[in-house]
Amino acid sequence: MTSPEPTPDAKTDPPGSPAARAPGAADLVITGCTALVHDEREQIRFVEDATIVVRGGRIETITSDPADLLSAGPADAVHIDARGQVAMPGLVNCHTHTPMVTLRGIAEDLPLDEWFNDVVWPIESNLQERDIELGARLACAEMIRGGVTCFADHYFSMDTVAAVTAESGLRANLGQAFFSSQGAEGRERSLDFALRHRDTAGGRITTSLAPHAPYTVDDADLAATAGLAREHGLLVHLHAAENRDQTDASLARHGRTPVEILAGAGLLDTDLLIAHGTGIVERDLPVLARATGRIGVASAPRGYLKFAWPTTTPVRALRELGIPVGLATDGAASNNSLDVWESMALTALAQKFTEGDPRRLTSRQALHHATLQSARAVGLGERIGSLAPGRRADIVLVDLSGPHTQPVHDLAATLVHSARSGDVRTTIVDGRILMRDRELLTVDVPAVVREMNERMPALTDRAHGRRIQEYDT
Amino acid sequence: MTSPEPTPDAKTDPPGSPAARAPGAADLVITGCTALVHDEREQIRFVEDATIVVRGGRIETITSDPADLLSAGPADAVHIDARGQVAMPGLVNCHTHTPMVTLRGIAEDLPLDEWFNDVVWPIESNLQERDIELGARLACAEMIRGGVTCFADHYFSMDTVAAVTAESGLRANLGQAFFSSQGAEGRERSLDFALRHRDTAGGRITTSLAPHAPYTVDDADLAATAGLAREHGLLVHLHAAENRDQTDASLARHGRTPVEILAGAGLLDTDLLIAHGTGIVERDLPVLARATGRIGVASAPRGYLKFAWPTTTPVRALRELGIPVGLATDGAASNNSLDVWESMALTALAQKFTEGDPRRLTSRQALHHATLQSARAVGLGERIGSLAPGRRADIVLVDLSGPHTQPVHDLAATLVHSARSGDVRTTIVDGRILMRDRELLTVDVPAVVREMNERMPALTDRAHGRRIQEYDT
Repeated sequence: MTSPEPTPDAKTDPPGSPAARAPGAADLVITGCTALVHDEREQIRFVEDATIVVRGGRIETITSDPADLLSAGPADAVHIDARGQVAMPGLVNCHTHTPMVTLRGIAEDLPLDEWFNDVVWPIESNLQERDIELGARLACAEMIRGGVTCFADHYFSMDTVAAVTAESGLRANLGQAFFSSQGAEGRERSLDFALRHRDTAGGRITTSLAPHAPYTVDDADLAATAGLAREHGLLVHLHAAENRDQTDASLARHGRTPVEILAGAGLLDTDLLIAHGTGIVERDLPVLARATGRIGVASAPRGYLKFAWPTTTPVRALRELGIPVGLATDGAASNNSLDVWESMALTALAQKFTEGDPRRLTSRQALHHATLQSARAVGLGERIGSLAPGRRADIVLVDLSGPHTQPVHDLAATLVHSARSGDVRTTIVDGRILMRDRELLTVDVPAVVREMNERMPALTDRAHGRRIQEYDT
Repeated sequence: MTSPEPTPDAKTDPPGSPAARAPGAADLVITGCTALVHDEREQIRFVEDATIVVRGGRIETITSDPADLLSAGPADAVHIDARGQVAMPGLVNCHTHTPMVTLRGIAEDLPLDEWFNDVVWPIESNLQERDIELGARLACAEMIRGGVTCFADHYFSMDTVAAVTAESGLRANLGQAFFSSQGAEGRERSLDFALRHRDTAGGRITTSLAPHAPYTVDDADLAATAGLAREHGLLVHLHAAENRDQTDASLARHGRTPVEILAGAGLLDTDLLIAHGTGIVERDLPVLARATGRIGVASAPRGYLKFAWPTTTPVRALRELGIPVGLATDGAASNNSLDVWESMALTALAQKFTEGDPRRLTSRQALHHATLQSARAVGLGERIGSLAPGRRADIVLVDLSGPHTQPVHDLAATLVHSARSGDVRTTIVDGRILMRDRELLTVDVPAVVREMNERMPALTDRAHGRRIQEYDT
């Protein structure tokens, strides 16, 4: 997927923000931090006492040598003294449904079929644009507070989500979801959305085509989607092989696994983001190996444990095929949070447990998933995912002075296994500060929560008996 | 286990603290909170707009009816306005090794035998009293910040840990660990410690006998320990059936499981706290069913995933026997944190996954483990674990106004699956405020960290080739 060079979008930047500065001036200079970088073999390294210079929303310099800074001209830039903090690439939530934060905790301790059919899909038939807007706004606030700088969203009413994203300052890949039960119109709306919004908000918004899943979108629709993706150079983002039951049901019904259905539809020859994949089985691996598109998988391990699924995303097998596995939370109605930091730790733990091997994922491997692999999974592997000159300045500053993160014998382990999302002090996207010292600068949380609660009785009414779709794999 | 009525210890209370007030005055009045209580069948309930009156370190009243407060006389008490916050019993860390926070992150991604033999036990041979003191102090700070009001510690140099506990304001059950390799002296020191320190620090410190484990303490020593426990009315706290390998090795070597060894030594007829128990197998269940002592098990699920153990604590089977399962973190050298809040969530998730059943643990069941079951596991089931008149005032106030904990459809789910340890704003033990609005009042973290880092080169030197013990199940 290629896209034009992003340009600053002055409309979304308030006066005095970095984008409003004189051309050529540095936006931002961060000094005194320990910076997480990748070496030429993509190994994680830490640069002590680093200075990061940001200009035009991009990282210009990252160095621990003051001599490198002579040309930076940072005199009129915003300065952040980050001594005692770690600068790292912002986290990427590779698969979520932001408006579903409105339903956080509404369907607890249920298997997936009851979760969908008895609670979530009936309630979703009540959703109004204003509910979508409030949910997306609260989700953006939660992610900024948790050090997430980019998310891949797969939902409905995505024009509204795009507007909220632009306003929040976050980066996102957005896709308008569709089922075949909506007829051709669903697919057409998904394409229309993707074309109208791609590379908007100063380049912060990219888009995808978003069929729901192989069990709700038929083969013809999937094949048509693959054709549109190739024609327009778009990413496709869908749920597939979410769990082993779905794979078994697909084999029983069609004689093919969900991954084989994607291959048959031509979707493995497009750039493709597969959500979950805990039902990817041995026979899928050679199919994935033959893919000519850039395939990524998003893993949201908390939900798999919560739904009591027997497997997690097969990270080792996917890595052996060169497929990036990004970190995700799924929606807050299943996961209960959009805490990608927790996903990072749980991915490391779940992989050790599943493989029966405490040696992997190491903390450095987990950080690689959280950074470059997540960026690649959402189609932004060239723009973000690493603190390096030329990349967009999506940076979080993490405070390790708390008693739970001291002492530091192994900084990678401290970040993955001791630090928490609440240790992120400052969140920066495209050089713009969205949270500073835990203060949110772009979202008014109390106002959102107040209105959301007023609207809740109408939203959660299920007396009508409707649902947007039937879950039946 | 019985103990005399705790009395305030003026020596550890600074002037102006609740214990220094006139007798009969309320210490503390908390208003406007939602209080987590247990009904007569121990079901979790929430009382809206509750007022909690604390007098003499005890909960005197908890009510949402202002008429109940006429006799409370709270006029001169410290007042906390807790609107928008949930008051719940402080968390209990049922098995940890506080001084090991010094080694947080020093032995990563290793199997248990290498973790012990190559890193932890060689380094522990360097430990000086000052290292113990600094580690315990940092651990207390971390736990107070995370809403933990009580911990069960099993380690060495426990006189020092007791002094730090008294100074921190926390409640603890402390045991001086021993191996049979130390001869009879190890066991004698453990008893001496337990008798000297029981019910000190105004009753906040209780004690236990602390044999290390059946694989490091021989049958004669275990039997002698059981005798001492009965004679002196002491809890016994040990590691047993930590993982399946240990159970298999015990069967191969002795023809008995670790639990059968405990039974043979008479330890199941004393009050007993078993750490971990992930290697408890089917044949152990009738053995445990015949126990006449009060048996509890401490589960620290994060470490089991990190060591890639194939099983977790068999919570359902233990509950069917009426055995309380408390929450724990183990030491920070294996778990990387003392975050009991995370243990609560992970216990719920790990049990759903292990049982293949998303319906249990429910969030309310997880909260029951975190409250009454944890209190019972550490021998304090009559004193703490519930917000009820007569119980000691160990209370945490949790702020749910963050975007990640809104909206609230199911408060139990919000607490278990959305809230984080960092959402605890205020921590109270025995009516004394140890943290208020995130500010620690009894520990100076920067001073501890500074000195700990100065001492680190000497502590972590392994060139001498010594270790305190050999791991060989």
